[in-house]
Amino acid sequence: MSATAVRYFAGDQPVQALPDHDRGLAYGDGLFETVRAHRGQMHWWAAHWQRLQRGAAMLRMTLPEESRVLAEATQLLAGDDAVLKLIVTRGSGGRGYSPASAGVPHWTLSRHPLPASPDAGLDLRWCETRLALQPALAGIKHCNRLEQVLARSEWDDPAIHEGLMCSHEGDVVCATAANVFILLDGAWVTPAIDRCGIAGVCRAWALQALPAREARLAVTDVEAADAVFLCNGVRGILPVARLGARTWQPHPQVVALQHRLAAEHPAFATEVS
Amino acid sequence: MSATAVRYFAGDQPVQALPDHDRGLAYGDGLFETVRAHRGQMHWWAAHWQRLQRGAAMLRMTLPEESRVLAEATQLLAGDDAVLKLIVTRGSGGRGYSPASAGVPHWTLSRHPLPASPDAGLDLRWCETRLALQPALAGIKHCNRLEQVLARSEWDDPAIHEGLMCSHEGDVVCATAANVFILLDGAWVTPAIDRCGIAGVCRAWALQALPAREARLAVTDVEAADAVFLCNGVRGILPVARLGARTWQPHPQVVALQHRLAAEHPAFATEVS
Repeated sequence: MSATAVRYFAGDQPVQALPDHDRGLAYGDGLFETVRAHRGQMHWWAAHWQRLQRGAAMLRMTLPEESRVLAEATQLLAGDDAVLKLIVTRGSGGRGYSPASAGVPHWTLSRHPLPASPDAGLDLRWCETRLALQPALAGIKHCNRLEQVLARSEWDDPAIHEGLMCSHEGDVVCATAANVFILLDGAWVTPAIDRCGIAGVCRAWALQALPAREARLAVTDVEAADAVFLCNGVRGILPVARLGARTWQPHPQVVALQHRLAAEHPAFATEVS
Repeated sequence: MSATAVRYFAGDQPVQALPDHDRGLAYGDGLFETVRAHRGQMHWWAAHWQRLQRGAAMLRMTLPEESRVLAEATQLLAGDDAVLKLIVTRGSGGRGYSPASAGVPHWTLSRHPLPASPDAGLDLRWCETRLALQPALAGIKHCNRLEQVLARSEWDDPAIHEGLMCSHEGDVVCATAANVFILLDGAWVTPAIDRCGIAGVCRAWALQALPAREARLAVTDVEAADAVFLCNGVRGILPVARLGARTWQPHPQVVALQHRLAAEHPAFATEVS
């Protein structure tokens, strides 16, 4: 099996390729999840599926049967350590924006190698691309991701691991593909995602585990923080070592959080030194 | 040939279906054009291709060869009256947002029946879905269209032809699939599209033909207007007869503009009574 095998489905039927007139291709009219698998098991599957359900409710989209998706995903993973990507679109729907004529949902599964674990803390930059404020789409993992594509295209230096993004009002929101937490005045804080940004699966875990609170954060808050980490469901907790001229030493609370995640989620046990 | 035949290409090669890992499907990382053809000829092709080029420059995307796209489109149209839809994506590009590893562009052509011409002026509503302000994506016809999908899903009454959308700041911007012009205090005005909205091909024509100016427009401006029309490259000039409780009689300047368009663009000659 190829390391990047892809499977396509229309409703509950396997198909050879994405069907014609797919609204995901036409309009980004779909949702996705990227799930870390350890020995073929997706420890956070339930959280990913719940986010998909929230997205489907906001977009008034039908999802395929969870049990069928899980069975196909498990077969594709074949017991391996890998990243599973699921895209669900509204199906085929003619030429106009109206979703009324869309048929059964289309979905595709692909498996990808695990990302390399960084040897040390991440080196970040600020992105110039701003996130537009759109409460009607905030929090969910929909397929309209041109802002992230533009932001990620701002640098090609491999020594820079990620970029932080601000909203059009200047609040810090997230990295291009991760959420961000900061330790500020002794308390953990992560940006609110009610107007833009994604409700990350690892973000939800860290909000409870630390615990942390949600707030509007300014650039100066991040630069004044005593510790910063990024997180996502594929890479877990990622300590930040540098952001422009600002540097941070490894922080014991972040190390402790990494150990706690490793204890709860076996995929991340290998990430902790 | 089916009325909705679809063709797929990767770079300059015809392919059977959309290739795996397409970034259009994954992120809406692409552009599209919807072009009216009359007896197989696309009168506004150059304007559509120029907008595609502006979009490709903003997204830093490679386009296929124009001559090849035009030849394939002309073959697909087979001399008919039809709507041609072109989608160009950044190609296949792995799992992350970075466009650096994307290969040749993927493109798809599909033909669709002409839309029915309304017997009388359009009946409009106001949409609740707001357009986010995003200057980095404004004006171009990219494939991140969930806002339009949400707006168009707000009604299913076939007696309502279109919905007007406002930005998050409350300015009137466009209809879900058309631009809007209003006659206010004796002068034609259309919303500026520097922060959201699409630079329509027929909008550009009407801006010159009337002439009209661009401005920020309030809801009250539209409701106070002496005449309102929508326009797009597929349907031409569409007089508005009603917006909620407000009604308009056919306006001689709009009728004159329809006749001028019919004289310049043969596809629209049949639309004028």
